[in-house]
Amino acid sequence: MKPVCLVIGAGAGIGGTVGKKFAAEGYHSVLCRRSDEEGLQKLVADIQADGGEATGYLLNAIDEGALEERIRLVEEEIGPIEVVLFNLGAQIGNRPLEELSYKHFELGWRMATFALFRIAKELFPRMEERGGGTFLVTSATAAVRGNAGQHSHAAAMGGRRMLCQTLNAEYAPNGIHVAHILVDGAVDAPDTLGKMLGEEAFQKLREERGQEHDGLMLPEKMAETYYHVSQQHRSAWTHELDLRSFSDLAWWNHR
Amino acid sequence: MKPVCLVIGAGAGIGGTVGKKFAAEGYHSVLCRRSDEEGLQKLVADIQADGGEATGYLLNAIDEGALEERIRLVEEEIGPIEVVLFNLGAQIGNRPLEELSYKHFELGWRMATFALFRIAKELFPRMEERGGGTFLVTSATAAVRGNAGQHSHAAAMGGRRMLCQTLNAEYAPNGIHVAHILVDGAVDAPDTLGKMLGEEAFQKLREERGQEHDGLMLPEKMAETYYHVSQQHRSAWTHELDLRSFSDLAWWNHR
Amino acid sequence: MKPVCLVIGAGAGIGGTVGKKFAAEGYHSVLCRRSDEEGLQKLVADIQADGGEATGYLLNAIDEGALEERIRLVEEEIGPIEVVLFNLGAQIGNRPLEELSYKHFELGWRMATFALFRIAKELFPRMEERGGGTFLVTSATAAVRGNAGQHSHAAAMGGRRMLCQTLNAEYAPNGIHVAHILVDGAVDAPDTLGKMLGEEAFQKLREERGQEHDGLMLPEKMAETYYHVSQQHRSAWTHELDLRSFSDLAWWNHR
Amino acid sequence: MKPVCLVIGAGAGIGGTVGKKFAAEGYHSVLCRRSDEEGLQKLVADIQADGGEATGYLLNAIDEGALEERIRLVEEEIGPIEVVLFNLGAQIGNRPLEELSYKHFELGWRMATFALFRIAKELFPRMEERGGGTFLVTSATAAVRGNAGQHSHAAAMGGRRMLCQTLNAEYAPNGIHVAHILVDGAVDAPDTLGKMLGEEAFQKLREERGQEHDGLMLPEKMAETYYHVSQQHRSAWTHELDLRSFSDLAWWNHR
Repeated sequence: MKPVCLVIGAGAGIGGTVGKKFAAEGYHSVLCRRSDEEGLQKLVADIQADGGEATGYLLNAIDEGALEERIRLVEEEIGPIEVVLFNLGAQIGNRPLEELSYKHFELGWRMATFALFRIAKELFPRMEERGGGTFLVTSATAAVRGNAGQHSHAAAMGGRRMLCQTLNAEYAPNGIHVAHILVDGAVDAPDTLGKMLGEEAFQKLREERGQEHDGLMLPEKMAETYYHVSQQHRSAWTHELDLRSFSDLAWWNHR
Repeated sequence: MKPVCLVIGAGAGIGGTVGKKFAAEGYHSVLCRRSDEEGLQKLVADIQADGGEATGYLLNAIDEGALEERIRLVEEEIGPIEVVLFNLGAQIGNRPLEELSYKHFELGWRMATFALFRIAKELFPRMEERGGGTFLVTSATAAVRGNAGQHSHAAAMGGRRMLCQTLNAEYAPNGIHVAHILVDGAVDAPDTLGKMLGEEAFQKLREERGQEHDGLMLPEKMAETYYHVSQQHRSAWTHELDLRSFSDLAWWNHR
Repeated sequence: MKPVCLVIGAGAGIGGTVGKKFAAEGYHSVLCRRSDEEGLQKLVADIQADGGEATGYLLNAIDEGALEERIRLVEEEIGPIEVVLFNLGAQIGNRPLEELSYKHFELGWRMATFALFRIAKELFPRMEERGGGTFLVTSATAAVRGNAGQHSHAAAMGGRRMLCQTLNAEYAPNGIHVAHILVDGAVDAPDTLGKMLGEEAFQKLREERGQEHDGLMLPEKMAETYYHVSQQHRSAWTHELDLRSFSDLAWWNHR
Repeated sequence: MKPVCLVIGAGAGIGGTVGKKFAAEGYHSVLCRRSDEEGLQKLVADIQADGGEATGYLLNAIDEGALEERIRLVEEEIGPIEVVLFNLGAQIGNRPLEELSYKHFELGWRMATFALFRIAKELFPRMEERGGGTFLVTSATAAVRGNAGQHSHAAAMGGRRMLCQTLNAEYAPNGIHVAHILVDGAVDAPDTLGKMLGEEAFQKLREERGQEHDGLMLPEKMAETYYHVSQQHRSAWTHELDLRSFSDLAWWNHR
């Protein structure tokens, strides 16, 4: 039986691509996303066509009990979850305080912070009993600095970063590897960046900075690092690392 | 009419003492706390006995609309709020993941992150219209690093720190000074540390490290710095500073 | 006999102005700078005209033994040094790696890092014996992030920030208060910014962002915070704080 | 002709082991260390016995011109340097300020900061002309926090971290990948930890925390991550990551 890699937030960017990578390396990838059954089944079929194992589920992470039930069912029906990729963001673009509702502020927290806590609650005791596991968290620059208009996103991501630290402090000695992967730049991902910018602007950006310029981060290249981190020997674990295109300014730099 | 200083979390530690300081400097201090009407009225009476102005309200910050209504009433009945001290924490002591309920995790966020957002939503547009204001936020080490057992506290405080940055980035140019005051050590405060440790352990700590040793932070000395920050000229504002006893190890140091 | 405040780097910006502030508060200010005897004597005369005490010395901080001798002489001839303001920078403007000589790289370290170490070596044992002292260090954004072209400056400032932490960790429990004051923005200072930009550009900047705009940091307003930090009670010391104009973007923010 | 990997600081820990890894992956490893010709030649022989290419040189990094000349000779005689591992530290154990000489303080800077600058000066223009290269820097916790007794080490490492940022900001867009690898824990390395602790204490530590406990970092496992970083696609580069044993407390945590 193959070990299971559970991806929460498996769109056609980082999530789906990392799922594919793990499947290619011998995992059964369980892909969960909120919507687009067709896109989801396409990802699953792609993996299977390459000889890999994958299953897909639509799942709204903020629904009460949905994450917990999915984890329980996967463990019963597919196998023990060895790796989780938590790939939910809370980026809704810039929104000034006056235009940001309580509901949206809370939504960011429910998706990016509370959902992660719920997964840890449900899964870490199981992983601990089995001797360990890996928890990969896709994070964003907003976890380390708050720009104007990023109230919901930055509060959710900043809380999440601290939560990754508390989980790591409590569970690393028991074999659970928590990694906070700070994605500091634009990803060449139609399902997230594409939707945020709109199709036209996204294609323009791709032409100007992406493609042969490598100025947009390529999910399949990022997946190499996600996978590497998951395979690190326990005597040499990474808790936090950043990723950005060579041509992009690091978040701490100004021109 | 005196300018108003609104204190959210006005116990017999930092909150009440800073309220007293602002009253002594010519503000009308509005003290809000969740419980202990008697303690609250004592604080108010103390300030008035020294010739200062103060009003006290019991207020549960997580009740829907309570903060918003209090702000509106204070502005109508007492005067425009010039300074806010946000002094709510989410420290419930160390609690391992398995013993921490969803409810407690959420409570931390409601008190330490969401309440701050709600105040900003209600008050910043008013302050902006008046040309400015000051927002002092008491923070804790958990805002910058997450220890084992601190899941709720650290997630809430880490989110809050980023929220302070987003608010600062958006509103500083419009005259609102947001200061994130990182209290990195034990405060000589019966209402918080005293309750967390229990009366006996708190008195023992006071004897060993507090009193003439100055190893516990004295609220009346901290209040000097809170007040100073609120009076900084807009050409030289501090957004973040730490406070600890001279004899305490900084959070980043190890022995 | 008045307590002594020693200023290393006493130009007509932060250094001289903080020296003036301490003199006004009852200190004997000892002002040291590398050149411009006339400017130095003007500062001294200004302080004396206001009824304060001050002495001025030309001093090249990188000369072997010069700092050490000056400290010894001040302690013998004027009095025990209670406060030091270390105000030397290593900013030489942007210089690409290929245009930066070994000599310039080393110079940055000698001025901004090694000189601070030398002062601590000479003075901290004396302060410790007397029960304490205060060491205020003017720092810059380059201490926390390295931009292109800032090789010498950032390496020197980054090393210095860590040195301030090691000194603080070792000496705070013995009563020496080390404060790292991160000046994150342009200061309205003819001797530094003025010289770096040139007279004309400096005046233009002043008109556009300074003066009634308060977009350049005013040394006399900054001096209020320097002084406040020096007077903090030992139960509530600040080790690090930032300062910037309300209208300036914090170093961690991007537009 | 194989690409060259130059290791500065090639002892029997991280340096030699990473050199071995690159040789196994098809690089010609050039190993430089200050002393122990016998140990050096053993490393070279080991690599060659495994079918790899390696050359060893004794080199004192702080000697004037020594690094520069070695780089020029390697480029002429062996081939263009594609990867550098800069592995020099400045750790001399805890030494209180009063026992730390100017000479030792400067030595830390010469080895850990200035030597890195000199290599960049000599090599980056060559790498840039060839379209790129990789600069891996072994760093330590002292680069991000300064403990008591670490004046020389922390000042040198903190300066170095900022220098890595300035170099990255200036050269990443031109294809040079600078990675700052924060080694946050004890490495199972006889040449460094062994010498610092003494043979007996080192063996005791190995028995208690190392070996099957994996509580000391294993250089051959760390080398996997060093190598991975060097092979990252330019659309997804890591500038900074940490490494520690699963059972070790992260530097930011307290028990």
